[in-house]
Amino acid sequence: MIVNGFRFSGISAGIKKHGKKDLGLICADGLVSAAGLFTTCSVKAAPVVLDMDRLKGGKVRAVIVNSGNANACTGDQGMMDAVETCKLLANELGVVESEVLVSSTGVIGQKLPVEKIYSAIPELVSSLDANSADSFTESIMTTDSFPKMHSVTKIIGGKEVTVAGIAKGAGMISPNMATMLAYIMTDADIDSKMLDHALKVATEASFNSITVDGDMSTNDTVIALASGASGVHIAEGEAGHLKFLEMLEDVMIALAKMIVKDGEGATKLVEINIRGADTKDDARRAALKIANSPLVKTAFYGEDANWGRIAAAVGGAGIAMVEAKLDIFFGGVQIVKGGLFAGGDAEEKATKEMKKDEIILVVDLNLGPHEARIWTCDLTHDYIRINAEYRS
Amino acid sequence: MIVNGFRFSGISAGIKKHGKKDLGLICADGLVSAAGLFTTCSVKAAPVVLDMDRLKGGKVRAVIVNSGNANACTGDQGMMDAVETCKLLANELGVVESEVLVSSTGVIGQKLPVEKIYSAIPELVSSLDANSADSFTESIMTTDSFPKMHSVTKIIGGKEVTVAGIAKGAGMISPNMATMLAYIMTDADIDSKMLDHALKVATEASFNSITVDGDMSTNDTVIALASGASGVHIAEGEAGHLKFLEMLEDVMIALAKMIVKDGEGATKLVEINIRGADTKDDARRAALKIANSPLVKTAFYGEDANWGRIAAAVGGAGIAMVEAKLDIFFGGVQIVKGGLFAGGDAEEKATKEMKKDEIILVVDLNLGPHEARIWTCDLTHDYIRINAEYRS
Repeated sequence: MIVNGFRFSGISAGIKKHGKKDLGLICADGLVSAAGLFTTCSVKAAPVVLDMDRLKGGKVRAVIVNSGNANACTGDQGMMDAVETCKLLANELGVVESEVLVSSTGVIGQKLPVEKIYSAIPELVSSLDANSADSFTESIMTTDSFPKMHSVTKIIGGKEVTVAGIAKGAGMISPNMATMLAYIMTDADIDSKMLDHALKVATEASFNSITVDGDMSTNDTVIALASGASGVHIAEGEAGHLKFLEMLEDVMIALAKMIVKDGEGATKLVEINIRGADTKDDARRAALKIANSPLVKTAFYGEDANWGRIAAAVGGAGIAMVEAKLDIFFGGVQIVKGGLFAGGDAEEKATKEMKKDEIILVVDLNLGPHEARIWTCDLTHDYIRINAEYRS
Repeated sequence: MIVNGFRFSGISAGIKKHGKKDLGLICADGLVSAAGLFTTCSVKAAPVVLDMDRLKGGKVRAVIVNSGNANACTGDQGMMDAVETCKLLANELGVVESEVLVSSTGVIGQKLPVEKIYSAIPELVSSLDANSADSFTESIMTTDSFPKMHSVTKIIGGKEVTVAGIAKGAGMISPNMATMLAYIMTDADIDSKMLDHALKVATEASFNSITVDGDMSTNDTVIALASGASGVHIAEGEAGHLKFLEMLEDVMIALAKMIVKDGEGATKLVEINIRGADTKDDARRAALKIANSPLVKTAFYGEDANWGRIAAAVGGAGIAMVEAKLDIFFGGVQIVKGGLFAGGDAEEKATKEMKKDEIILVVDLNLGPHEARIWTCDLTHDYIRINAEYRS
């Protein structure tokens, strides 16, 4: 994966055990447009607070990321450590300190092992290479069972433009492992205000439309960087604008689905579609209620077309609904019609759909024009094993 | 367990397999004051809809309960079956049909096997006995691993007054098993309006303060009946009023804790106390967010004093909080002080607390005067097993 205008590196600084890669760097060739979205959790990790402030300028040069330690719930010391990390990297790169961002992911409440990071910075910088996106991706992984990268290249105005993304996360949140990080790089030429808006819209349809266990992390971070190296200018109202937005959404949805697929212990990817809702908010609420119901999630694990649990979840979502209008479909098979079991061989056919690795659930409220789509995964024995045993 | 003015029975009607008891009856000697509270789920089972209507009169003679079938998502047919069940029972008892209530618990979306119920009604009525509360309790059980009864007798105005309760439920909801049913009987003499108010207050502190998996059922029901047989009149402002309210709350909290203890797969009862919240609503939100977090619940299962997950859950509750003011205690051991790890041997001591069967968690927001208490259980391998494999 190559994006013009960016170099990457990923090395082992000794934060994680067994010499695993745990320190990564994205470095732009010059100052680039930047935008970010962060956790709405009231408990925010030090690097999140720092990055939110630094992104106000809309221009960034580099992002340094460590795994193995979240630098969260670490108070003033944590903020000093985050600032110092950026400062030492800026010195090594010969750039301005305020143009450097930092992310951390890992255990909460432990002091960042800064000495290890500081002494690894020279190697981190000397390893920078346009071809090293793989190493960077590896260096930010925690409980992830596979690296998450996705890239799309299209022609806009006769020239090639690339949008590429790298993410980590295997649990919408495991506060202990400090969750989801995502970095989007593009060689499009787009100003930071427009990039910020595009990132918000695409995040709503991607990272904000997935849930593994309904929790939020102290460290959730999505950062977008645009180098402009393609020479393709993206401006409001032009044909290329819509195309760019689609590319961004495609890349981010692909990464979001990878995170759900890699949800802790997950064996199935479930796409939940709510249709016919009275309001957009009702549609999302219903989808999230289903997606986060442990009873629904265990039924998916058990490959049980248990529509009663779906109906009860929708009924408990606090939305406008009429039981006698409710339709439910598993993978195109209608199992509930007008609030009642559809009859015939619906149960057998639906059970067949439940055996697939990717399942599409459609719930039609038949009340209004609004829809929502959420991706989630099943709740399994391995989820319990991973999360009950993690720290011990 | 005996409550003056009431007789009970519980028999096998053949709804459940293996000749298990599945049909129960509570019958008052005369017409008694009655009040009820029901699921707020939009999808309500037929018996819930019927009982809500019949309780408007505030007087009831009998309650018939079947397990093994929820009579939920059964449309008009379900309502006809519920009405007919009450009618046949009323005929057998020689009472007015509208004075009979009905509850159902079990599988959703299947027609109530009315013939089995109808032909069992004569035996159900002839088995009525003041000493048969045990049989009734057994007849309403579904996934419950133990019967749930609790009774308190005190002297009010020189006379004995009893408040007794019977409940079923082993998952705040398993829609498939149709959840929590509770019946409170007292021989106090109290009018239905006052009983209704007392029931609401006590439910808030008991059944509405427990959560196993955060879902709601289509059939959740709490019914209170007051025979007046003690001859003790309970009236506003009198000394006996407060005593009666305390007895009611004691009985209902005891039953609620039994339900959590018997939560599907649960190995630990966890009491979550939020203190120092800015508003009452903030306190409850924070407690429920912690209680329903799969990450927190698996940490309890793993006996891991994982305060990072608690802090992140509070942070994600959408309430007023200041990270630097947060204190967290496991069973009296302070592990977080002012948002940071308390240090010393706090981790070892807290880990010892986590090994107990009953754990008290205190989170002090140090912002205001409001508190909330919620009981929950851990999330275990057995929860997954029970709920993934239930219908198959």
